[in-house]
Amino acid sequence: MTPRILEVRKGVLKKNDELAAELRARFRAAGVFTVNLVSSPGAGKTLLLERTLAALADEGARPAALVGDPETDNDARRLARSGVPVRQIQTHGVCHLEAAMVGNNLAQWDLAGFDYLFIENVGNLVCTTSYDLGEALRVVFLAVTEGEDKPLKYPGLFNSADAAVVSKCDLAAACEFDRDAARTNLHAVRPGLPILETSGKTGTGMSEWLAYLRDRRRAFLESGKAW
Amino acid sequence: MTPRILEVRKGVLKKNDELAAELRARFRAAGVFTVNLVSSPGAGKTLLLERTLAALADEGARPAALVGDPETDNDARRLARSGVPVRQIQTHGVCHLEAAMVGNNLAQWDLAGFDYLFIENVGNLVCTTSYDLGEALRVVFLAVTEGEDKPLKYPGLFNSADAAVVSKCDLAAACEFDRDAARTNLHAVRPGLPILETSGKTGTGMSEWLAYLRDRRRAFLESGKAW
Repeated sequence: MTPRILEVRKGVLKKNDELAAELRARFRAAGVFTVNLVSSPGAGKTLLLERTLAALADEGARPAALVGDPETDNDARRLARSGVPVRQIQTHGVCHLEAAMVGNNLAQWDLAGFDYLFIENVGNLVCTTSYDLGEALRVVFLAVTEGEDKPLKYPGLFNSADAAVVSKCDLAAACEFDRDAARTNLHAVRPGLPILETSGKTGTGMSEWLAYLRDRRRAFLESGKAW
Repeated sequence: MTPRILEVRKGVLKKNDELAAELRARFRAAGVFTVNLVSSPGAGKTLLLERTLAALADEGARPAALVGDPETDNDARRLARSGVPVRQIQTHGVCHLEAAMVGNNLAQWDLAGFDYLFIENVGNLVCTTSYDLGEALRVVFLAVTEGEDKPLKYPGLFNSADAAVVSKCDLAAACEFDRDAARTNLHAVRPGLPILETSGKTGTGMSEWLAYLRDRRRAFLESGKAW
């Protein structure tokens, strides 16, 4: 990368940080707990999110979701089956979501009507790292099908996350997934990172994942009282 | 993306195109057939490449490889076990290889000593699209574990490829991979795209893949006579 593009990129990131701070203040004022889901393409974010939206709605919570992809609105149509508010962001070739895209897509929503807002980012283990979306929680997915080495190869994103979801655990045996190596690598990059093992297909780990979300939302709301 | 970053990006891509044209002329002059392998992180490029290098060396061909990752030299160490010349490019957070990185890492090699040069790109389905590396052949991987929808979501990269490798086919049944849907989606984005179905683990499809490489290299050398 040339110095010139680096300089311009810094300006873009500064602008994004300012917009993300505004979003964070709006989420805080509305009491909506916002979660940014990041991963490689095809790590199973959409399926886990589909189950998460349905489970939260079933227990009386009010979730919503924004879903980013370079093209197609397949994921939004799929998630909308859960009956909760969902909106697709098509980035048209941009490899990550930006705070401005999130802001533009919130225009017609009353945030105070939501308890949770999930933002499913574009599948990308590098460029999503630097773009704050105003989220309270950043969750990085590591599918067992991808290999245990990904945290070491892409340390920036894994280091920026608040929690890791090890996904597609139903395929762990077929992939000869080395669970200990994955945990060691995750913690080498981000010591103490909470790790949740899940399968969107079988439902394994869903109750722990939902309990984790409830707990983090509670902490978010409590910290807001002093905020 | 703002107009300003777009403008600078155009300048960077123009510079990359110029460097890629120089590389392409060098590869042509040396008679080395260069293949750019692109995919999501964890799609199985390294394992298939490991087997490919060993098989080509076994039949008396002279392959070499450059391998890109944001961090670590794990893949180069792994590929070097095949005994062929391998060099790691650590991009340090850059999400794709660029022609300049390739050029810098060729300095100590005599290209005329190679028949094939494989360039394993950083795992990324978006940003790798626009960076020509001077390759004669661009091969995009779609792992069966990623889902059949990826060509539709990331059409830019799939459209830019000369061939698709459907990888990790040993996991197709476990993933309930819909082969027909994947082929339909690949051809929707790039009509007529050759599709090779492989498993680096079991070796399925290796002979077809190697035959395809030999055939494309032969066509490359023959076109060079008139060039």
